[in-house]
Amino acid sequence: MSAKFTPKKVVLAYSGGLDTSIILKWLKTEYGCEVVTFTADLGQGEELEPARKKALDMGIPAENIYIEDVREEFVRDFVFPMFRANAVYEGLYLLGTSIARPLISKRLVEIAAETGADAVAHGATGKGNDQVRFELAAYALNPDIKVIAPWREWDLSSRTKLLEFAEAHQIEVAKDKRGEAPFSVDANLLHTSSEGKVLEDPAEMAPDYVYQRTVAPEDAPETPEYVEVGFEAGDAVSINGEAMSPATILTKLNELGGKHGCGRLDLVEGRFVGMKSRGVYETPGGTLLLEAHRGIESITLDRGAAHLKDELMPRYAELIYNGFWFSPEREMLQAAIDKSQTHVTGSVTLKLYKGSAKTVARSSDYSLYSEAHVTFEDDAGAYDQKDAAGFIQLNALRLKLLAARDKRTK
Amino acid sequence: MSAKFTPKKVVLAYSGGLDTSIILKWLKTEYGCEVVTFTADLGQGEELEPARKKALDMGIPAENIYIEDVREEFVRDFVFPMFRANAVYEGLYLLGTSIARPLISKRLVEIAAETGADAVAHGATGKGNDQVRFELAAYALNPDIKVIAPWREWDLSSRTKLLEFAEAHQIEVAKDKRGEAPFSVDANLLHTSSEGKVLEDPAEMAPDYVYQRTVAPEDAPETPEYVEVGFEAGDAVSINGEAMSPATILTKLNELGGKHGCGRLDLVEGRFVGMKSRGVYETPGGTLLLEAHRGIESITLDRGAAHLKDELMPRYAELIYNGFWFSPEREMLQAAIDKSQTHVTGSVTLKLYKGSAKTVARSSDYSLYSEAHVTFEDDAGAYDQKDAAGFIQLNALRLKLLAARDKRTK
Amino acid sequence: MSAKFTPKKVVLAYSGGLDTSIILKWLKTEYGCEVVTFTADLGQGEELEPARKKALDMGIPAENIYIEDVREEFVRDFVFPMFRANAVYEGLYLLGTSIARPLISKRLVEIAAETGADAVAHGATGKGNDQVRFELAAYALNPDIKVIAPWREWDLSSRTKLLEFAEAHQIEVAKDKRGEAPFSVDANLLHTSSEGKVLEDPAEMAPDYVYQRTVAPEDAPETPEYVEVGFEAGDAVSINGEAMSPATILTKLNELGGKHGCGRLDLVEGRFVGMKSRGVYETPGGTLLLEAHRGIESITLDRGAAHLKDELMPRYAELIYNGFWFSPEREMLQAAIDKSQTHVTGSVTLKLYKGSAKTVARSSDYSLYSEAHVTFEDDAGAYDQKDAAGFIQLNALRLKLLAARDKRTK
Amino acid sequence: MSAKFTPKKVVLAYSGGLDTSIILKWLKTEYGCEVVTFTADLGQGEELEPARKKALDMGIPAENIYIEDVREEFVRDFVFPMFRANAVYEGLYLLGTSIARPLISKRLVEIAAETGADAVAHGATGKGNDQVRFELAAYALNPDIKVIAPWREWDLSSRTKLLEFAEAHQIEVAKDKRGEAPFSVDANLLHTSSEGKVLEDPAEMAPDYVYQRTVAPEDAPETPEYVEVGFEAGDAVSINGEAMSPATILTKLNELGGKHGCGRLDLVEGRFVGMKSRGVYETPGGTLLLEAHRGIESITLDRGAAHLKDELMPRYAELIYNGFWFSPEREMLQAAIDKSQTHVTGSVTLKLYKGSAKTVARSSDYSLYSEAHVTFEDDAGAYDQKDAAGFIQLNALRLKLLAARDKRTK
Repeated sequence: MSAKFTPKKVVLAYSGGLDTSIILKWLKTEYGCEVVTFTADLGQGEELEPARKKALDMGIPAENIYIEDVREEFVRDFVFPMFRANAVYEGLYLLGTSIARPLISKRLVEIAAETGADAVAHGATGKGNDQVRFELAAYALNPDIKVIAPWREWDLSSRTKLLEFAEAHQIEVAKDKRGEAPFSVDANLLHTSSEGKVLEDPAEMAPDYVYQRTVAPEDAPETPEYVEVGFEAGDAVSINGEAMSPATILTKLNELGGKHGCGRLDLVEGRFVGMKSRGVYETPGGTLLLEAHRGIESITLDRGAAHLKDELMPRYAELIYNGFWFSPEREMLQAAIDKSQTHVTGSVTLKLYKGSAKTVARSSDYSLYSEAHVTFEDDAGAYDQKDAAGFIQLNALRLKLLAARDKRTK
Repeated sequence: MSAKFTPKKVVLAYSGGLDTSIILKWLKTEYGCEVVTFTADLGQGEELEPARKKALDMGIPAENIYIEDVREEFVRDFVFPMFRANAVYEGLYLLGTSIARPLISKRLVEIAAETGADAVAHGATGKGNDQVRFELAAYALNPDIKVIAPWREWDLSSRTKLLEFAEAHQIEVAKDKRGEAPFSVDANLLHTSSEGKVLEDPAEMAPDYVYQRTVAPEDAPETPEYVEVGFEAGDAVSINGEAMSPATILTKLNELGGKHGCGRLDLVEGRFVGMKSRGVYETPGGTLLLEAHRGIESITLDRGAAHLKDELMPRYAELIYNGFWFSPEREMLQAAIDKSQTHVTGSVTLKLYKGSAKTVARSSDYSLYSEAHVTFEDDAGAYDQKDAAGFIQLNALRLKLLAARDKRTK
Repeated sequence: MSAKFTPKKVVLAYSGGLDTSIILKWLKTEYGCEVVTFTADLGQGEELEPARKKALDMGIPAENIYIEDVREEFVRDFVFPMFRANAVYEGLYLLGTSIARPLISKRLVEIAAETGADAVAHGATGKGNDQVRFELAAYALNPDIKVIAPWREWDLSSRTKLLEFAEAHQIEVAKDKRGEAPFSVDANLLHTSSEGKVLEDPAEMAPDYVYQRTVAPEDAPETPEYVEVGFEAGDAVSINGEAMSPATILTKLNELGGKHGCGRLDLVEGRFVGMKSRGVYETPGGTLLLEAHRGIESITLDRGAAHLKDELMPRYAELIYNGFWFSPEREMLQAAIDKSQTHVTGSVTLKLYKGSAKTVARSSDYSLYSEAHVTFEDDAGAYDQKDAAGFIQLNALRLKLLAARDKRTK
Repeated sequence: MSAKFTPKKVVLAYSGGLDTSIILKWLKTEYGCEVVTFTADLGQGEELEPARKKALDMGIPAENIYIEDVREEFVRDFVFPMFRANAVYEGLYLLGTSIARPLISKRLVEIAAETGADAVAHGATGKGNDQVRFELAAYALNPDIKVIAPWREWDLSSRTKLLEFAEAHQIEVAKDKRGEAPFSVDANLLHTSSEGKVLEDPAEMAPDYVYQRTVAPEDAPETPEYVEVGFEAGDAVSINGEAMSPATILTKLNELGGKHGCGRLDLVEGRFVGMKSRGVYETPGGTLLLEAHRGIESITLDRGAAHLKDELMPRYAELIYNGFWFSPEREMLQAAIDKSQTHVTGSVTLKLYKGSAKTVARSSDYSLYSEAHVTFEDDAGAYDQKDAAGFIQLNALRLKLLAARDKRTK
């Protein structure tokens, strides 16, 4: 299949780092093809201009170098829709890597169309989920695109061979990249993930130096901090009363969460490709956002809607994890979820303290909470307790018929 | 319905407190019936013998007073099966009250059979979920039993009237019960819940004095504590290597969690009877247990089983919350869940610190985690990265056909 | 509750038949209230003008008599959305009665607003599902409306008492209504249901005379008939190439299905109120529509969307059956379902013969069926069979890890 | 992967037909390996002894020829458990092919263990679902087994090449196999499927000669036939009062269904490998069994259990279709389903007529149907209609709160 295909022009997801620089060169030597680079600012916290310089240095003409700040699009069109669902994978993982891949693929395919490229390429390995996410998204957006995954094709299977290839092709290797990194990292505005090597034994605690984005709870401030998150129609729109853009909000929440040691997660998860892996995730802002979103939903969302959302969520999260963001079933679930969010508007106060973020207060003009009904005091007829008798009797009827059957036939 | 029914002999869920003492007396005066009292030690942390004395004082003959320690049964047959499911209601609530009710009803119905009683009675109000849980369980176990719910029937609708009734009937009222409690409490070995009155405005933070069973995270030890929980077939069986009975384990986990400020939850939830209510829950041991159970499942449970469990869980939790413990559908789900737990055996290390409890290590003889497969190093052929190409191609095929259709018909 | 409420003006769902005429009179005598009648043509096959005359005869002023043909609204806004979901209750029932109730309630509530009425009333009994459907819909549309359900309130509990009341109030009783009907009937454009009395023993076959709208398969034509149903975005739009309005299409399909004995169903179902009941349903047009809709979906709907729809359907059907048409969760599911229907466009040929209606051919400009891929002949590279090896290996990986674990730990 | 693997001894799923004979020879010539043949009587309606003779003729020693009648095991351990779930794929397909594959793989793997073979082989192509089913089952039962799928490996890609290979290796080719079959067939006791070639255009009706096992409805008897199916714990155990073994029952139902033209299905379905295909299925006995099972469940299964089963079914069917019979999640679902079947005991009368099979009566000692409750007559207090008021009020409460919110915030 793709093995036999020889691309003429490839759009490469290019970080400017060693690995994708090697890929860039390999694509040119292996296929003799033209390469277009795409470098996105997803909030990973790295300068992008060095990537431009490196690409130029490696002979990519300026017009073939795409460098873009996609942070607002990322948060608005990917992160926020996902948080409307309260999505967590296997009960805990906030999908920080998973949700970034479709956006990158989308831009790769769009740039391919603009530049007349017949293929796109990524630097994910053959063992992980990311290859699947990149490729499913690309194929879903352009059925004729070809995807090159060098890690599945080449024979640069060891660190030594990679470095030899770099040397042979005059690719600059930063000193700190000569040795093997003690673990592998992915980062964007939503999260930082670390995995591999020192983390490979799930019975061993993760060393402290793995964490990069959050202080240890032990080092967090001794005093709790309270933060108020405002929502409109399911999306965060303000912090402590100040309106902000989606990416600004997430940046600010990251800052707050990181300072208080929130959002660390040490997880063994089941990959789509069939094996289990252990990852350490830091999602400071996302952790606050999830808690606050659940908080605002708790008063604005009807039980019927809320429970249906809870039942649909694991499937939705699995779809995103497995790379099916651009699929009819994810879009169907999104339509259902979005439908529920119209009145998810109001504000939530979180208490941040030494690694935890908890809802402590919530209010909304659209609240469904009725003190008049629930009160222990006189409710002035809002609720007739006698109704409960009939409610219980009819809910019990089928159970009584079952019990009577069991008695009769014992 | 039940209004017209006149019981001859009633088994009353009797705590020994003021409210159920009033109910005891009311049952006798209202119906002229014989009363049997049932007082259970569910781990609520109160002495039971005073209840015996009170019942005797109120004229209940000794043979009609049932006082039982059901803590082991509670944890083994109710709490543990529920935790196999990782059950949380509306994303957060560990169902501490919900899971105790069916056990109480079961004993009420059994004692009714033993004593020839034709009815059972409980002290839950007409606004809450507990009446539903008590009654559905009772009817499911004996279709012919009658349930008396005095709070839905009598006219003692204010505190004043209640106290007048108590006085008129020589029911002793403890001094601290003369005023109104600032909130209402339910407790058992799994949790303590507080609700009502000072908690009725969900926009107001819960006052510190509401919490009874956990220290504030701010007051918890400055140093983390690590605890190892051992599991067999999905149930906790040991702490730090020491084997313990179910109730002993939960007691020990409560102690640990309470000391570190774990398991506090401030929630607005949707009641089965249709209104929203705000509760403050403390589930210190349960919070540790849930985290540890997820931890051991993460290495022993296959992705297929784990994801199916996640999808079934919200329904399962809803059934327990709504009072359908003794229902065919809960039993069906339990059968599915239990089927998955055969190899959920091993141990998990939790880190407890200032309100949070997190899995930091896990190991099992039954682990499905394969370092051989996942390693970033040479995997000696355990996994052929080229397989991923075919895997992706066939997963993508339907998406490509969709994209081709869209292209063709645009 | 409502027992104590005394309405001033009531909008009554009025059929013009004996029962609702008695209700009309009873409302006036019981409450001394003004009555507004609403009579809808839902396709039940009865003249509406006699209802007007009867209402006038019973003293209802002309301006208080609402008679409306709602057939197009019924099919367009209720039946068609439901058929997009392929909804069947308990595997078989096409929900013909359930889907009509919310529309009636909607108009009752709207007319109450127009006429300043403070209550609505219906003629459903206290044992069935229809009371629930009427009332939930009404409350969901106007939280302040009151609903009067005379069958749950009055003491006219026997046929004799009803006839005495009629006589006492000069309500004309048709001769054939003097005796008891051998079963009870509900009809609208989608279906006719019969239940009760001669049908009460589910071990006894339904007598032939119960069926009113379909010929017996034995009496259907000896020759099959082929009919082509055209769809656009999930809704039927034409028959045999002729474009028609929604109600016209359903009418035509009823004619075709009825002629060929299609759509008879003899079912025992679980009512929302807790008991089981036996019904005989005739849904000739709906049966054809469901089969055709499945047929067009089979080539235009992706597997991911189709399977998700199948999983959501039972819940969706249950919501409609239980009366939750106007609920956030039904609307969420509808949003998901509707999202999937954009390209469900094309045509399906059904074969009708002696009680069965089967898809025998289907075609669409939006077809996802690719002969190029599926062919047993040379596929010119459309599909690389070698991809299947990798696809299977990675799908098998977790199963292999499980099997290896079992082997290791046996 | 398997490409590089050279088996020493292979157990081949051998039908005795041309294709698997070519595979037999190809395995020997390609790998120089020993071949063990396994030929199963799954009720496909062919003699097995000719397969033995052929294998002997091709040089397989007698002790390497396994010929077994597995019909009882097939129905008892695979078909019946599946029918307890009322499983249909994509709303219509009774999974006749899917359910046979795991049994064949199970025996292949067992025979490999007995004979010391290191691989198994099957004759399924690289485009279909069967390769997946065979292989997933094999790997799930023995993680170390290798599976050879010649159709994905060899270069005998055209009919001509196959016949040349046969000729070159003295494989006898029956005259009617020289030309291409007009479609491809799979059969077992549950069903016969036909696909490919003349069936490849889903807009064309299937020609009559495709059907092999059922008469055309037009040719079925003019008179209906009534048949009574007896069930115990969810499985059919008798026909017309006569107790029979599982395979005998299915054989008898096939006879009855086939005679009356029941169980024909013309379907476009979504394959697991990503494409859509069109199949014509004949499942005469299975169609009767599904209808009868639904019938007996309708009176013996509680609504809670029945609805949960309906919601789980699509997933369960998908798992079987996709080849995950031997998976933890299928076993979890089976545990839930089986749990529900304890009292699914009784008998159902079906009416068979010209292609349709319909439940017309059902009875059971375990019936939950209560005429006392449902009756239109006086129910002697079995049911208090007033209970319905409270039931509706509390079900409505959340809808009222929503409506009040909408009103307030409009």
